[in-house]
Amino acid sequence: MNVVIIGSGNVATILGRKMFLAGHEIRQIVGRHEDNAAPLADELNCGYVLTLDEINKDSDLYIIAISDSSLAEIGTELFLDKQLVVHTAGSVPKSVLEKVSRNYGVLYPLQSLRKEIKTTPEMPLLVDANTEDNLTLIYDFAKTISDKVEAASDEERLKLHVGAIIVNNFANHLYALTEDYCRNENIHFQMLLPLINETASRLNSFPPKEVQTGPAERNDFQTIEKHIELLAQNPALKKIYEVMTESIIQNVRFKVEKFKVVSDK
Amino acid sequence: MNVVIIGSGNVATILGRKMFLAGHEIRQIVGRHEDNAAPLADELNCGYVLTLDEINKDSDLYIIAISDSSLAEIGTELFLDKQLVVHTAGSVPKSVLEKVSRNYGVLYPLQSLRKEIKTTPEMPLLVDANTEDNLTLIYDFAKTISDKVEAASDEERLKLHVGAIIVNNFANHLYALTEDYCRNENIHFQMLLPLINETASRLNSFPPKEVQTGPAERNDFQTIEKHIELLAQNPALKKIYEVMTESIIQNVRFKVEKFKVVSDK
Repeated sequence: MNVVIIGSGNVATILGRKMFLAGHEIRQIVGRHEDNAAPLADELNCGYVLTLDEINKDSDLYIIAISDSSLAEIGTELFLDKQLVVHTAGSVPKSVLEKVSRNYGVLYPLQSLRKEIKTTPEMPLLVDANTEDNLTLIYDFAKTISDKVEAASDEERLKLHVGAIIVNNFANHLYALTEDYCRNENIHFQMLLPLINETASRLNSFPPKEVQTGPAERNDFQTIEKHIELLAQNPALKKIYEVMTESIIQNVRFKVEKFKVVSDK
Repeated sequence: MNVVIIGSGNVATILGRKMFLAGHEIRQIVGRHEDNAAPLADELNCGYVLTLDEINKDSDLYIIAISDSSLAEIGTELFLDKQLVVHTAGSVPKSVLEKVSRNYGVLYPLQSLRKEIKTTPEMPLLVDANTEDNLTLIYDFAKTISDKVEAASDEERLKLHVGAIIVNNFANHLYALTEDYCRNENIHFQMLLPLINETASRLNSFPPKEVQTGPAERNDFQTIEKHIELLAQNPALKKIYEVMTESIIQNVRFKVEKFKVVSDK
């Protein structure tokens, strides 16, 4: 397919690379920031322009990979008649494109993408469209750049986006807090990396509930208390320790009251 | 070395296998539960007994891999004179063994170990001992079963144990909550596995703070609000969404007040 990419950030770059490798012809990059658009156009062997006024209007597919707030205004800035156009956002309905073209949809990568990482990880794609025919077109296109493609409505995509935030942003925030904590306490965060990798890769074989371990899971209030004391100087981490511990305890159906009695001592 | 293992659970089994593979002679398993002790003894080509009274008393090393609460009472049940004895607990001081033998220490695996998983992941070991000579003995022994060995005091071990709980138990709990959520909402948790793996493996190349993304990190209160509304029927996950989001926002030095205004709407 002939493709125009609107955007030149992480998602634009990674999708661009995947499409280029799959043999699609990237026609043009439309990017506001020349510092990003120029090198991406160079890498994908195409031209670039800095405004939507200069967009190439006769390509097969337009991929919009810009921020959610810019996407909200795209209906007043881009008019494509009948060319197929997709956005790449998890939490924005496809109808944001209804004034852009008669044929529109979504191509949402359910992965954390960083252009500086050259070996792209497995990237599931969620697709959606305003008609069955467009859905088939987008689905088939998606299959050329990913093995894992599923159709998902606006609502399903939004829900999976929430899931993605929990397992990516929140897990990573736990790692970031732990790294800070290790630095402050003069212990080596690096020693925890094998455990972090094991915790993730184990999910390929076991459901997470089956491999839950630790003091909260086994109702070990003495250890929990020891840990909460240790975190007295670190209120941010202490709060999260308490909330997560309480949530695990609730999940294993122990009485929450019991934990509260211990932690209020 | 000639080794006696006290315990027959996950830690006893995994350490036993590693020692066996490294060429150490396992002399005996001491385990209360015959259902666990017998197959482990069989796997490690040694005998087993069910009580501490029957323990073999002339081995080089005794490894205690039992629950923290049982460990607290070991000083009244096991007397070894001068044989080297170690426990394997993250949050228990080494002095719990001072009545067991004149020579004691710790061999703590900083990994989540499950005996049903045959391919054991990389397993850092934290070692400690009551004398320099014993520390050297335990360190050298540890190096025969792991590439990553560090000496760590009681306090350092406790702190790393807290870190381990955060990056393993809490991250896994996020996965478990997300899996439940996906099941309830009829969306596919499996689609999130590549993202989970990428989030973890990326830490081998980037510090977590540098790869933090998502609505909280970029101050995108509109998306946060959308997600919190979506979680209205799921108070457990909603609470965690709010606490983690607030923590990320605090971490990027945005005003907490701003988030509260949005979430209280």
